[in-house]
Amino acid sequence: MPSCIFCKIISDEAPADILYRDERVTAFRDIHPIASTHILIVPNKHIVSVNEVTPEDETLLGYLFTIAKEIAKQENVAESGYKLIVNTGPDAGQVVFHLHMHLIGGRRIRTR
Amino acid sequence: MPSCIFCKIISDEAPADILYRDERVTAFRDIHPIASTHILIVPNKHIVSVNEVTPEDETLLGYLFTIAKEIAKQENVAESGYKLIVNTGPDAGQVVFHLHMHLIGGRRIRTR
Repeated sequence: MPSCIFCKIISDEAPADILYRDERVTAFRDIHPIASTHILIVPNKHIVSVNEVTPEDETLLGYLFTIAKEIAKQENVAESGYKLIVNTGPDAGQVVFHLHMHLIGGRRIRTR
Repeated sequence: MPSCIFCKIISDEAPADILYRDERVTAFRDIHPIASTHILIVPNKHIVSVNEVTPEDETLLGYLFTIAKEIAKQENVAESGYKLIVNTGPDAGQVVFHLHMHLIGGRRIRTR
């Protein structure tokens, strides 16, 4: 999707602090972190939101957990704990309409 | 796991307000809801947490999103929005050590 910022990051047309990348998933730091570890794990496929998920996406979405587990280890939050959050729609505050999983752990950052 | 409350709910040995059940996943209302819609979507397989996920679990975990999408529609929060949250470990407040996805949407409930 040419207008999607996450598609641009995935294809290296926009900058990001990339932590992991393969042919299915890209992970990078959130530019507005709410905790010392705040990473976005994004399927390279442009899926708008959970509302648009189809059964053929299940293996890809399950793979997000495998990557989350590995990144949590690398970030030293696997034992202390972390939240994986996927927001859908306005009440959840979804701002980029390319499905993504937040990995949030470590020290909470007071942003406001 | 005989001592696991979610395994007991899945096998009908403990009560719950079940919304969905099949051979892979069980969904029921959280007994301490923090919003008007607060549902737990639980793989029937006893996986302790995301830290214990293996690649063979990916299809099962991806399937949680398909069930979440359907339940969000049934609960009339698909368009207004909802959060899917998987908590791991103490910092995230994981209290039941059987991996589960929270589906949270609708009006926020003030519990304290």
